[in-house]
Amino acid sequence: MEIEKLSIEEFCNKVAERKPTPGGGAVGSIVGALACALAEMVANFTRKKKGYEDFETEMEKIVEKMVEAREKLFLLSKEDMEAFEKVMKAYKSSNEELQEALKEAASVPMDVIRLMKDLGHELEKLAEFGNKNLASDTLNAMDLCRAVLLVEKVNVLVNLKGITDEKFIKEMLEELSEQESQIEGSYRRVKELLEGVVWNLK
Amino acid sequence: MEIEKLSIEEFCNKVAERKPTPGGGAVGSIVGALACALAEMVANFTRKKKGYEDFETEMEKIVEKMVEAREKLFLLSKEDMEAFEKVMKAYKSSNEELQEALKEAASVPMDVIRLMKDLGHELEKLAEFGNKNLASDTLNAMDLCRAVLLVEKVNVLVNLKGITDEKFIKEMLEELSEQESQIEGSYRRVKELLEGVVWNLK
Repeated sequence: MEIEKLSIEEFCNKVAERKPTPGGGAVGSIVGALACALAEMVANFTRKKKGYEDFETEMEKIVEKMVEAREKLFLLSKEDMEAFEKVMKAYKSSNEELQEALKEAASVPMDVIRLMKDLGHELEKLAEFGNKNLASDTLNAMDLCRAVLLVEKVNVLVNLKGITDEKFIKEMLEELSEQESQIEGSYRRVKELLEGVVWNLK
Repeated sequence: MEIEKLSIEEFCNKVAERKPTPGGGAVGSIVGALACALAEMVANFTRKKKGYEDFETEMEKIVEKMVEAREKLFLLSKEDMEAFEKVMKAYKSSNEELQEALKEAASVPMDVIRLMKDLGHELEKLAEFGNKNLASDTLNAMDLCRAVLLVEKVNVLVNLKGITDEKFIKEMLEELSEQESQIEGSYRRVKELLEGVVWNLK
């Protein structure tokens, strides 16, 4: 199933029904794509705008990256479903197959997290050089980006729980911690740069 | 435009393009609907499950509420776009019209936040009585619920900035603070109840 071809209403219905997939991991991936789309809008509104000429090439690059990231996230939402279905099948099969399936199911949300780390870096640039009229959209994208990290982190951890390969677990936890600190860094930086623009009321 | 009838890909394209709507507020509303759909799945997997018979009526109620909330959130995503378009038109018109338009544009994201507060309360019940096999989906829904609060809060504040009616501002900020503390309370409670189920690795 290619989730991105479903209408939003159909996707919500499929999430809601009593079937294991699509679950939280696939939803997180789609929310990630929406966050990328918001970042892309901010870059598009910075391009060809008076006073922002110096950032034309940078903004063009951001648009390209976001288009690509969205496609990857659509693919990952599908892979998340497939990986989970494999795990469920593998429970009835050998432990070896189960271990393989769990590793794959932990790797898909990690791929989503890697894309969120990249998005966080682009959002830092947009917060610094992007069109200030869209400060609220940049902040919105950052809040969603961080939420997707949290969503996918849970999905990495829940799969690691069943894995016996200590080396794999260690590597995944180390990467998780590294990606997390990068995204939290982007989060703080974007807030710092833009809160004053929007939040002067608080 | 009824956003929920668009495919996810089409919606992302519309968000990304160089047009002011749909922006962060409408995206937040759709993410809210996805969070409701996840909560609904957890309730559906709790119904008619051995060992969870006592919660059948409660789960049925949650499903009904979530179906209703999703419909409201779809409508609010449309209203968010319309409200913003009114603000832009009003900038070329009288200050009186602008003030009215800004008040409406601040009220739509507040409506989304109210629904997130309700969702938070339902997620607390799901965390306590719901099917523990779906603990990760309940946590995912809670992380998205909180992100939508943060997204819509920015959209309330950015509109309040242009409003001159001090009484309106005061009331909105008071309600914002109240809703926020309720959602943060649900957030803590859901984490407390479920982190141990998923996060025993950390």
